[in-house]
Order: sequence, then structure tokens, then C-alpha cells
Amino acid sequence: MGKKIVIALGGNALGKNLPEQAIAVRNTAVAIVDLLEQGNEVAVVHGNGPQVGMIANAMTELTRSDPERYIPCPLSVCGAMSQGYIGYDLQNALREEMECRGIRHGVTTVLTQVEVDPADPAFDNPTKPIGSFMTLDEAEALKRDRDYDFVEDAGRGYRRVVASPKPKRIVELDTIDCLVAADHVVVCCGGGGIPVVPTGEHNHLKGAAAVIDKDFAAELLAESLDADYLVILTAVEKVAVNYGKPGERWLDELSPDEARGYIAEGQFAPGSMLPKVEACVNFAESKPGRSALITLLDRAADGIAGKTGTVVRA
Amino acid sequence: MGKKIVIALGGNALGKNLPEQAIAVRNTAVAIVDLLEQGNEVAVVHGNGPQVGMIANAMTELTRSDPERYIPCPLSVCGAMSQGYIGYDLQNALREEMECRGIRHGVTTVLTQVEVDPADPAFDNPTKPIGSFMTLDEAEALKRDRDYDFVEDAGRGYRRVVASPKPKRIVELDTIDCLVAADHVVVCCGGGGIPVVPTGEHNHLKGAAAVIDKDFAAELLAESLDADYLVILTAVEKVAVNYGKPGERWLDELSPDEARGYIAEGQFAPGSMLPKVEACVNFAESKPGRSALITLLDRAADGIAGKTGTVVRA
Repeated sequence: MGKKIVIALGGNALGKNLPEQAIAVRNTAVAIVDLLEQGNEVAVVHGNGPQVGMIANAMTELTRSDPERYIPCPLSVCGAMSQGYIGYDLQNALREEMECRGIRHGVTTVLTQVEVDPADPAFDNPTKPIGSFMTLDEAEALKRDRDYDFVEDAGRGYRRVVASPKPKRIVELDTIDCLVAADHVVVCCGGGGIPVVPTGEHNHLKGAAAVIDKDFAAELLAESLDADYLVILTAVEKVAVNYGKPGERWLDELSPDEARGYIAEGQFAPGSMLPKVEACVNFAESKPGRSALITLLDRAADGIAGKTGTVVRA
Repeated sequence: MGKKIVIALGGNALGKNLPEQAIAVRNTAVAIVDLLEQGNEVAVVHGNGPQVGMIANAMTELTRSDPERYIPCPLSVCGAMSQGYIGYDLQNALREEMECRGIRHGVTTVLTQVEVDPADPAFDNPTKPIGSFMTLDEAEALKRDRDYDFVEDAGRGYRRVVASPKPKRIVELDTIDCLVAADHVVVCCGGGGIPVVPTGEHNHLKGAAAVIDKDFAAELLAESLDADYLVILTAVEKVAVNYGKPGERWLDELSPDEARGYIAEGQFAPGSMLPKVEACVNFAESKPGRSALITLLDRAADGIAGKTGTVVRA
């Protein structure tokens, strides 16, 4: 009996630039089609750090080249472009891998917006660096003209920083649900989704200068789709305590209570394993019978079969 | 009884840059939601000339700024980005206009590839200029390194030119069909679709350095979805013969045979009204009962009601 699975792909699933991405998506497609071949329904969420950075850099260079003609491009628009860029490669690799194995499913990329709360405390403390280095003059001009925030980065110049608020609602959920139910493989919530905040009447959605953590977006999607499994694919086979230190121990299972204890001990690195474990705990506790799995990209099918990875369940 | 309608949006529906687009999509949404309110199912195809040009310029500036790090970005990838960029604004304007009128439909952008024939004669004669002006040295380097074609443009420098082949197959048709049938408003085939050619085994799709005419892509989509109406929205209310000359006459109806006669007389401008009339003739002749309409963006609902525009039917 197949399960409904939401997959969150880590950075290694996509590479850091155009040629790397073209190669990486092939391996990624193999892992995802393994899960399809087991009879599961699959939605795929991916990050976009290097890709949205590249696009933001390109749009900055464009404005520099002709400031009269090109205004600075909002980060939300760069995020929408990155969903097109990544989805195009990823859906093609998936289609080709399915064709190769004689499996027929529709495969598609759905441009996805994700609502965030304008009162999210993350907006008071923007921490995520985005795009290229600038001079102090350029940074101060953008601070003045567009209220951007900046940090000085290790003597290499100034970089824009944005907030990383929690996802609250997936705007295009109906579409994703409709396609998953029709057995399509759906690439969505790319880069954690284009962050938007509702403003004014008629629920106008305004792009927010923010990036949403893709593991949290995948968790919200898994809950919203009533999925059975949240699968977070990353660069390690299992979650470890005392990682890289004496007493290192790889975990096969992890209960939400155990996870909270380890989190309190500072066992998981912020911005790396910590959000993954938190997303898994949230999902495992959201409804009886839901499980979350953290493992390597190419061990996904073995992980779902209970042979490897760290399973988080209540 | 509602009809299934494919709409092709002209350049005036989107504007030429970010601020223009944000305004233009609101009027465009009003016109499209008028058709929804009549009970029709709607898929929307749009052009991307200025938008893909802007993105191609940005990627060129990025490569210029750091040639070691950034290779030139294929036009197909720029096209994928433009679908994200435009779809994001367009789907939001549609969602908001529906919300405003109390209409509930899902609305979504589907990243769409369109297959073209690598033997299409258009590839022997690339004519569509793309992106920014370059020096002769830059153009020659790209000709040598990447086999790009160039034209010299009226003393302003050199511009890349690409082919405009005919669309053959919409790769993501299953997805679009599934969503239209579920009463979603679907933005798809943006910019005529990302042009791809099948290569090798397992039907690998390779991006082509080309742009597909959005009116022909919309016509193919309308046939493929078994639509009742193809509606081409543009800057004139009706098609004219002797346009802007003595004997100018606006047409309410046009049969395929009449259209062929006028085409032979050179009545319609290539790259402008000609492809629109050709697309309409193809659709009207593809199956009994199919009609095509050319009219102004804000007269779309009146046109479908038979009150204005030029109707092409067999």
C-alpha cells in the first residue's frame, strides 16, 4: 500500500551552479523515482540558496549596468524566477528517469507562494545573507533608498541580510493537492516558497523580503496534504549526537521528547541539523501515525523501508 | 453553458518592466475574471519578449562581472525564469480579482515546456533578436565559443538572434488538462513555452536556443485541450484590411478562405497580426464547432458574447 510522502531536498540534491545542477538532478531523480516505484505519491520541496543568490546577483548587476532603466528587483521576484530555473531541470530529470523505467506519471512544477506572519519576530532580526558583496557606499544607498539591512562579512564587504520567518499557509495548496491526488509528481514550495504577507482588503499578497526554511515549508506542506511521511534528504545517513566528538552515536529512532532533550543540550547545529529535527518533531506530533525520516539522498527508498536513516515518530 | 477557452495575452497585458507589469496585470485579471464569471473554464498563455530580454541581459551582466564563476545562461533557462517571474504577478492579480468578486477557483502557474522540431526550417534562419546590445568583439567571442548567431542592429551594436520554430507538443499537457478540468485557472505555456527538442534515448529534452510565438503555442494548447474558443487579446478591437490606409475596413467575421486571401494580399503584418490570424485559422479549421476571436483585452467578455471583435470560424 503506497504512502503519501513529502520530500525535502538538501543543497547537495541541486548543486551550486548551472553545470552542477544539470548533473545533480539526475541522481536526485533516481532517489525520488525509487519512491514512486514503491507505489508512493510524492511531492518534492527543494532549497534555493545558491540559485536565488545567483539570480539576485544577476539582477543587481543589471541595475548597476543601467540604473535609469532597471530598478532593483524584489527578492520575492528573484525567488519566483528560481522556482522556474530549478523546477525546469528537476522536472525534466524526473520525467526522463520515469521514462527510463517505464513508469507513467505526470510531473510538474507549481509556482508556490507561502504566507508568513508580518509580526513574525524573525523580521526584527534578519540573519540570512543574500546575493553578492557590496561596498559600504552601495549598502548605505540601498539602506537609505529601500530600507535593506546589511552585515559586514569578514572583511569581504557588505551583504544584504533578510529575515527567515516561519511558514503559515501554502497559497497554492489546492493545486498541489489536486495534482498529487491525480498521481502527478509535484515540484513545489521551491526555496521554501515565495514568502508573501496578506495586506489590505481582498487578501492582496505582498512579496516579503525574506527566505523561508525549506524544511519548515516541507513540514507545513506534509501536514496540509495529510501526508504519511516527511522525508528530509541531506548529506548524512542518520542524525548523530556528539557529532564529530567523543561519544558520537548515530540514531535509528528518535522520539519528540528525546529530540527536545538533545535540542536543549545544543546537539544540533542551528541552520543545519536543528531545523530538520525540529521540522520532523513538528510533523511526528501533528497527528497519530505520522513519521518523519532524515537520511541520505540515495538511501531514501531504504529509509522508507525501515532499513536506514533516523526515524522520528511519537 | 460555459465554454473551454484558451486566452493568448499580448504584450500590453503585461507591460515592459517590473513596475509596468504590476499595474498591467490588474487590468488583465479583470478581463480574464469576466470570462470566468460567465462560467467558462480558462487557460491563459502569455508572451515574454521584454521579460526574457531583461533576464537574458541580467545573466549576461552576471557573466561579464565574473566570467570565471558564471557561464553564459542558456536561453531556455532564462525562459523558465521568465515563466516564474510573470506567473507570480499574473496569478496573484487573478487570485485577488476573484477574491474581490467572491469567486472561488484555484489559480496556478504551470512551468511548461513545448517541443519543437529540430528540423524546423526556422533553425536555418534565426530572426528573433534577444537581450542586450554587444560589441563586435563580444559577439564574435560568443559566436566562436557557443555558436550564437548575431545581427548588427541599426548602428546600435550587435544583438543575438534566435529561431522561432513552430510548437509541436506541450510536454506538461496532462497537468494543464487535469487542472483545467478541476476548474482551476491555469497560467501556462508562458512565452510560448520553454522550447525543447527530444534527443537520444528515454526522450531526453534539451533546451533549444529559440522562442516560440505565443499565439501558435496558445493555438496548439487550445487544440490539445479540446477547447471551444481561442481568444487572442491584443491592442486592436478588430482585425482590419487596408489597415491605416484608404479603404480601411474592420472585420466582424472572417472565414479561413477569406483569411487566406487577405494573407496572400499581404494584408497582415508579419510578427504582428499575421501570426494571430494564422493561429485563428488553424484553430477554426481543426475541428467543427471551434471558433477563434481577436479583440482588445478589455472587450474579451463582449467578444465571447458576440458583441465585438473579429470571429474566425469555418
